[in-house]
Amino acid sequence: MQLRIPGPTPIPDEILQEMTRQMINHRGPQFAEIIQKATAILKDMFQTRGDVFLLTCSGTGGMEAAVVNSLSPGDKVLAVANGFFGERFADIAELFGAQVERLRFEWGSPVDPQEVRQALSQDTGIKAVLVTHNETSTGVTNDLAAISAVVREYEKLLLVDAISSLGAIDLPTDEWGCDVVVTASQKGWMAPPGLAMVSVSERAWQAQAQAKMPKYYWDFAKAKKFLDEKGQTPWTPALSTIYALAAALELFQREGLKNIVARHAQVGAKAREGVKSLGLSLFPQDRCASNTVTAVKAPEGLDVKRLLKILREEYNTVLAGGQQRLDGKIFRIGHLGYITEKDIDAVIEALKTALPQAGFSG
Amino acid sequence: MQLRIPGPTPIPDEILQEMTRQMINHRGPQFAEIIQKATAILKDMFQTRGDVFLLTCSGTGGMEAAVVNSLSPGDKVLAVANGFFGERFADIAELFGAQVERLRFEWGSPVDPQEVRQALSQDTGIKAVLVTHNETSTGVTNDLAAISAVVREYEKLLLVDAISSLGAIDLPTDEWGCDVVVTASQKGWMAPPGLAMVSVSERAWQAQAQAKMPKYYWDFAKAKKFLDEKGQTPWTPALSTIYALAAALELFQREGLKNIVARHAQVGAKAREGVKSLGLSLFPQDRCASNTVTAVKAPEGLDVKRLLKILREEYNTVLAGGQQRLDGKIFRIGHLGYITEKDIDAVIEALKTALPQAGFSG
Repeated sequence: MQLRIPGPTPIPDEILQEMTRQMINHRGPQFAEIIQKATAILKDMFQTRGDVFLLTCSGTGGMEAAVVNSLSPGDKVLAVANGFFGERFADIAELFGAQVERLRFEWGSPVDPQEVRQALSQDTGIKAVLVTHNETSTGVTNDLAAISAVVREYEKLLLVDAISSLGAIDLPTDEWGCDVVVTASQKGWMAPPGLAMVSVSERAWQAQAQAKMPKYYWDFAKAKKFLDEKGQTPWTPALSTIYALAAALELFQREGLKNIVARHAQVGAKAREGVKSLGLSLFPQDRCASNTVTAVKAPEGLDVKRLLKILREEYNTVLAGGQQRLDGKIFRIGHLGYITEKDIDAVIEALKTALPQAGFSG
Repeated sequence: MQLRIPGPTPIPDEILQEMTRQMINHRGPQFAEIIQKATAILKDMFQTRGDVFLLTCSGTGGMEAAVVNSLSPGDKVLAVANGFFGERFADIAELFGAQVERLRFEWGSPVDPQEVRQALSQDTGIKAVLVTHNETSTGVTNDLAAISAVVREYEKLLLVDAISSLGAIDLPTDEWGCDVVVTASQKGWMAPPGLAMVSVSERAWQAQAQAKMPKYYWDFAKAKKFLDEKGQTPWTPALSTIYALAAALELFQREGLKNIVARHAQVGAKAREGVKSLGLSLFPQDRCASNTVTAVKAPEGLDVKRLLKILREEYNTVLAGGQQRLDGKIFRIGHLGYITEKDIDAVIEALKTALPQAGFSG
């Protein structure tokens, strides 16, 4: 099956094989070695000298962890949102009692750093900014370099959802001053879902010490204590998924972050060209189109649900539809992780014959 | 390696092989089939007609989910604790703002249902009772039948940590009126860690609708909506671990719950006899000794840390030490899940020669 959704993503056979390894004691020396090595490579991939933790949960769990470790109920937060996942980040903060101001941009458009600046200059009470690096729902990569520069200027805490960017799109965590950065194993990382990876900066630790939102399972301080003192996680970790991620990280190390980012840029460009060659248009503006997921506008006459069904049943190819207000209006091609230009060719080939079957004659 | 800790537990090869299956769309029909089938078998094993959900997290995450879905800050809770994990359950409730009264019993002793009755009769303001079915830290199985009868009599909500009992020790959820029951994949279930499984009764749903502790990732209402309406989980689930658990559950179904419980009783008895044959004593009282984990008192002269190291390095056998105040005072043999009487023989054999090396001459 050609799984071309923006996560879970295909996993190399050698990594799937890693999961046939038998269980070990998660409080023993063998596990300590695995997690310490994996964490060291992750720090390189996050481009951080801060802490990085593995949490047993989905990416959304990682977002919740970022929020509850950084904030107190009543804290003012600027949630910058230009899609489904930006709204989710805001929802989480709100649910835990933050006073959330949503700075919204049209879905398909990028976040405008100047508007972030304006919002921060108008309300000096804001404590933290929540931002989505790569908005999976719209196929937009936000200009995090520019946004983070503004946030730094105003000395706010910056929490970043990098779930579908990190490990595929450049994100120099320390250089850009990102305080908590969240990603997840099933995205660019060529591993199964079940793990979130989060980085924590020095400034985020200062916030953590003050943050009053309740946390037990998500407590970064416990994660740090167990990792630093024992090479462990506070709670039993998803061992098999860690076996897979650890093996994938060795592939990352071998290929090198620069090459990985360049490969995703090539594959992304290929996907955009391919889509256009079929007479289709991108949903986002070209200048912010993502290198990990391509969102395609459903043209007049196309029945997206039918297209996805035909692709799945007749072409063995699985693409994603649109979420929420974009349901039926776009479809999405995931190309993060273990994906090559040849894989994109195959998707475009399948689309070429499937599109007319679903009502689009080009 | 002979992994004989109370979780993670060994996994049959055929189940490890399941994890070499490639990723699929967690929002597609194939996943719906897997989760619906797994959930149906889980309901049989929980002996419930209520809801059962798979959460991507450890057992502790499941405990947190049980608490935040059932309670509001300020609610009075009776936390019955006779070990490390009973205290953890209480800690979680307290951290999220419950007013927790701890009814403590000596570690190694069982919970006395009469004292639970007394506590409930004295304080009519108590809303919920937290109890550990099998206290992994001390090797004690509490008399949940009797405890739950008392809790039902006083019409309180009953939240049960059954992490190391369910699927190995009989726990008829509905018959005993347990409202939320939590277990985890790496215990009796012959699957890797990474999933908690929780049941939710009708009464627990009524509590859930009123409960004001903040929850996003753990929200049972979202889990129910996604499972019932779409055969999905709200957040990307630990797919490979679900492949493994689903396959393990088919083995469960084939063997039958009665046979599984009987097998664990036999293996447990074998472990207790074996330990005593070496001149050692159980840590708990015999009448409450667990069928999934045997806690052994460290006799005069025995260096537990050294024993565990020798067993690991020279006998390829991994046992567990004591936690917190029991560190150095006990060691524990896990025998839940994919363990046979022959495996216990091997542990006893290893102990026979390793004990003198660690200072115990018998």
